[in-house]
Amino acid sequence: MRKSKPHKKNLNSDAAILKTLETLLANEQTQASTSNSKPLTLSDLSLSSTCREVADLPLSSVRSNIETLILSLARSILSGRGFSFSVPSRSAANQLYVPQLDRIVLKDKASLRPYAAVSTVRKTTITTRILQLIHQLSLKNIHVTKRDLFYTDVKLFQDQTQSDAVLDDVSCILGCTRSSLNVVAAEKGVVVGRLIFSDNGDMIDCTKMGMGGKAIPPNIDRVGDMQSDALFILLVEKDAAYMRLAEDRFYNRFPCIIVTAKGQPDVATRLFLRKMKMELKLPVLALVDSDPYGLKILSVYGCGSKNMSYDSANLTTPDIKWLGVRPSDLDKYKIPEQCRLPMTEQDIKTGKDLLEEDFVKKNPGWVEELTLMVKTKQKAEIQALSSFGFQYLSEVYLPLKLQQKDWL
Amino acid sequence: MRKSKPHKKNLNSDAAILKTLETLLANEQTQASTSNSKPLTLSDLSLSSTCREVADLPLSSVRSNIETLILSLARSILSGRGFSFSVPSRSAANQLYVPQLDRIVLKDKASLRPYAAVSTVRKTTITTRILQLIHQLSLKNIHVTKRDLFYTDVKLFQDQTQSDAVLDDVSCILGCTRSSLNVVAAEKGVVVGRLIFSDNGDMIDCTKMGMGGKAIPPNIDRVGDMQSDALFILLVEKDAAYMRLAEDRFYNRFPCIIVTAKGQPDVATRLFLRKMKMELKLPVLALVDSDPYGLKILSVYGCGSKNMSYDSANLTTPDIKWLGVRPSDLDKYKIPEQCRLPMTEQDIKTGKDLLEEDFVKKNPGWVEELTLMVKTKQKAEIQALSSFGFQYLSEVYLPLKLQQKDWL
Repeated sequence: MRKSKPHKKNLNSDAAILKTLETLLANEQTQASTSNSKPLTLSDLSLSSTCREVADLPLSSVRSNIETLILSLARSILSGRGFSFSVPSRSAANQLYVPQLDRIVLKDKASLRPYAAVSTVRKTTITTRILQLIHQLSLKNIHVTKRDLFYTDVKLFQDQTQSDAVLDDVSCILGCTRSSLNVVAAEKGVVVGRLIFSDNGDMIDCTKMGMGGKAIPPNIDRVGDMQSDALFILLVEKDAAYMRLAEDRFYNRFPCIIVTAKGQPDVATRLFLRKMKMELKLPVLALVDSDPYGLKILSVYGCGSKNMSYDSANLTTPDIKWLGVRPSDLDKYKIPEQCRLPMTEQDIKTGKDLLEEDFVKKNPGWVEELTLMVKTKQKAEIQALSSFGFQYLSEVYLPLKLQQKDWL
Repeated sequence: MRKSKPHKKNLNSDAAILKTLETLLANEQTQASTSNSKPLTLSDLSLSSTCREVADLPLSSVRSNIETLILSLARSILSGRGFSFSVPSRSAANQLYVPQLDRIVLKDKASLRPYAAVSTVRKTTITTRILQLIHQLSLKNIHVTKRDLFYTDVKLFQDQTQSDAVLDDVSCILGCTRSSLNVVAAEKGVVVGRLIFSDNGDMIDCTKMGMGGKAIPPNIDRVGDMQSDALFILLVEKDAAYMRLAEDRFYNRFPCIIVTAKGQPDVATRLFLRKMKMELKLPVLALVDSDPYGLKILSVYGCGSKNMSYDSANLTTPDIKWLGVRPSDLDKYKIPEQCRLPMTEQDIKTGKDLLEEDFVKKNPGWVEELTLMVKTKQKAEIQALSSFGFQYLSEVYLPLKLQQKDWL
């Protein structure tokens, strides 16, 4: 009656697997402390004059940056020169992938946005209004969403895309991240496992969050005091796999922190993952679907999305390992034919496009896997592993992956 | 420079508003204890022979129900009569809105599903397989998603809609809720405020969950030990409003529990809301967008969705009050014209359809509001209140609503 469970007999004892993981962690921490204590920056690469990035700034600096900017505009007006903003370009032509950083950054192109010109008077007005609203937020020290911001002056903004776009401009103008502006996105990620942290002053123990886990806070600046005895972070694409691991308390068998954004990564989860990686110096292993979309999600965590490239330093987590489900796993783990899905034309095109991306090309293992996927034209979800039993993922597949150090 | 904030001067002291809320709570609890200690059931209405509902059953009962069913099938086969399932019909023609219960329930129509018939042999096989899988889950006492269930036998199920439909059939056949079967949906709700409960054995204090809040667990059967000193439950449609209230710790000014499913209500949040209402005997006040969709969401929490009507007793929360944002609020609170949106043809049609629904018709206040909405052809989001300042919602609008007992 029972189907055989591929590779179950190859599993070593948990103690042996834990030894493997301890080595992984030790490497990670040596790397973090020796290679250089700080990660590479644009100025290390002598790119700071030709490229541009934003930084996390404290609220008081955001406030004083706005005040300084407005004062200089006032002086310009008083001296009879009118006023204009210098706005960094966020177009594709002004973006650059920096291999040493493994991130997309903005080049130094900027354009003038004068008030005294018919073509820019509206946008200049919107920019000024957004600066005023952000200044208010900084005085009150509260967080709002982009939707809230739009509704404060619908008459002027007309359409949320307009206030959203100028908000990104304002980040670039002030040289700070969007979260520094106290404008946050809706959170949808959850975290569970061997992590303790503070959320808005409350201490949260993520081993005591049941099966539901802790919702990741929308405002990373109120997250702090991270402590952990985990050996790694397990980044999971989908909710269902997260649930299986949370219910089985996988993090107690193999000390880890399990995190998911339930699909497409949101800003809050990306910031949270980066903060964990940086403060706790833990290796990050990713479990995504074996399809181009899964790899794309990995890339957003790893090297950023194009429309927020000005903020790539804060939003990206370096050196994420691709644990699974990888195209080569489909045969290795004998995923039954009927649990594999044929790739659509669009899937195949996305796969081929990814093969041209720098962040894939720099990792020969990834190129090999992706080439296999495009060649076989087959994809599979993490859930396909359920064909060997509901707990095959947590009891055989993942432990074996860890034991064999089978990540890329 | 500052816009006037409508009605701000009408606000009483918090102490006075708290007195109002205490009366509301006392009424609720008197009602719960006097009218009759147990809520009405189908058998109180002499409907138990003509209508059908499922119940939350312990795992051991689910297991023994399956075993009894399979034994009777085996006897039928041995006696030469072959075997078939008797499956309650879940079609619209078999559904009934019961005003006394204020819920949709199933009537008693059922159909035979014989194995020895070409038209039903496949579905009978699928039904048997799902019963076997549920039996496995009940032995292991683990939870899985519908997606997991599908992947255990893709060859047979072919398509997830097929295993999903039969899963609902199996709930009806066994007379138990889907969550009793240990098949859960992905959770997306969050809760924050004056609530303590246990999630899979861990005690959670929702006043200490920062701004992110606690993710609502997918499996209601592992939720228990609810305690609260709240005066009411505030059910919020959208994420952004939830965030504002969580950051401002609104629940400390007016003791309450704040819960949201971030849009369309999911099963886990509906079960969680009902459990809070039943165990804590708290009034539930709803804050939704002023559009037909907002009212529809309220109705799903209140009287169920049609495709899960067999389970309406467990999924619905009776007597939810419509606090806001109501069509009449648009003028009362002077929402600027540019923050109101014109209703689309589809919106207007949905509004008119809702006016024909029993759950709306039984509440004259709702009919009046909905008629106004359809007449003015205007809708507005909760966020439209941000036009009077980011904190107008938490500092003026909601306190005034509570003070004036302005709910329907």
